Amino acid sequence: MNLFYQPEIPRGANFLSPEESRHAVKVLRMKNLDTIDITDGQGSFYHAQITEANAAKCEFEILNTKSVARRPFEISIAVAPTKNIDRTEWFLEKAVEIGVERIYFMDCQNSERHHINQDRLMKIVISAMKQSVQAWIPEITELIPFKEVLKKKAQQKFICHATNEHPNMLHTAAQKNSHYLVLIGPEGDFSPEEIKDAQVNNFEIVSLGPNRLRTETAALTACQILNFINL
Amino acid sequence: MNLFYQPEIPRGANFLSPEESRHAVKVLRMKNLDTIDITDGQGSFYHAQITEANAAKCEFEILNTKSVARRPFEISIAVAPTKNIDRTEWFLEKAVEIGVERIYFMDCQNSERHHINQDRLMKIVISAMKQSVQAWIPEITELIPFKEVLKKKAQQKFICHATNEHPNMLHTAAQKNSHYLVLIGPEGDFSPEEIKDAQVNNFEIVSLGPNRLRTETAALTACQILNFINL
Repeated sequence: MNLFYQPEIPRGANFLSPEESRHAVKVLRMKNLDTIDITDGQGSFYHAQITEANAAKCEFEILNTKSVARRPFEISIAVAPTKNIDRTEWFLEKAVEIGVERIYFMDCQNSERHHINQDRLMKIVISAMKQSVQAWIPEITELIPFKEVLKKKAQQKFICHATNEHPNMLHTAAQKNSHYLVLIGPEGDFSPEEIKDAQVNNFEIVSLGPNRLRTETAALTACQILNFINL
Repeated sequence: MNLFYQPEIPRGANFLSPEESRHAVKVLRMKNLDTIDITDGQGSFYHAQITEANAAKCEFEILNTKSVARRPFEISIAVAPTKNIDRTEWFLEKAVEIGVERIYFMDCQNSERHHINQDRLMKIVISAMKQSVQAWIPEITELIPFKEVLKKKAQQKFICHATNEHPNMLHTAAQKNSHYLVLIGPEGDFSPEEIKDAQVNNFEIVSLGPNRLRTETAALTACQILNFINL
């Protein structure tokens, strides 16, 4: 199944973007009267028929609409982008596939990267949403300071940090059907000040499991655990 | 912490491989009397002191040894390598980080890749084992036919396959402290014959969750779920 993305359908758009039009008409060789599936990324799937198979502006008529409810829980992950951006891009693709509502890119004291290309990252999000056939597009942010992330609202707030004595595990600390915000530090870990600052702001220190994980593996594992406890 | 790998310690080796020697002496600039940590990948960590900081053959003396027991469960994942091998390599790195005992590379009817470079994949396994500070090295195989994988022994055998009606979920079907074998199909999915063949061989059809996942995401998610139920 090829799913197309057109966020403007709720505002009356009946055509695909130039990029999506090209994909439908040039790559997939779709023609007038062929049917396609589209999402607006805002909770709806549309089954539609192509009325004008134009490779620059492929027009369609909606045959029927299916609404998908928001999940009863909400996962927000705040992560420091990795020095090698490929690792962050992998995390992003996988997190979207398995399910995530929001990703905050976070600038920490020990961050090794202070710049991200949000347009490029958004393309990865869109592609993964289409690939995994989802109707809600996750939100991603520009790089924002650690202190600003601390002000974000959530019902359960966690900061991942390895402590040796009796770790508090994310999968037992997190409750079902909640809105979670989990902070994942950079390669050099959070600074002691950041940990303290998070605690003052009611973030609970948690561990993800017994192994030492890379930043992007930790971020994905947090996402997997929160999806898992809600299965 | 930099962990080195020397599988020959149980057979008396008191030196690092040329590659590891170069890393210790040239890159990390370690000198005589510096201490290092080594694993043999067979359940032991060694704390050792460098006696000859030679960049081609770095010799050491073991100060103390710590044994790590095998986990009380065992995860074997059989996966069809992806067309784009980067995706398989990424899965391999992440699976080793979070914990896996064995990966069978499997040749299926719809496989898009019929060749793997086992040496290259083994390097990824070693690097991820060291990175995540583990004392047991996971096993990986050459590419083996689907029918041979069906003969592999395990206490609980699963094949991941999307079915719409009331899916049997891996996280409820799998019991704690068992030896699991999970089959993950290629991009074009298993053929109907393969599914039937697996069922005849007592593999249970399972689903990993609500979303459609890429091959490598499904393989990693299976691994995460099995680690998770044993936390």
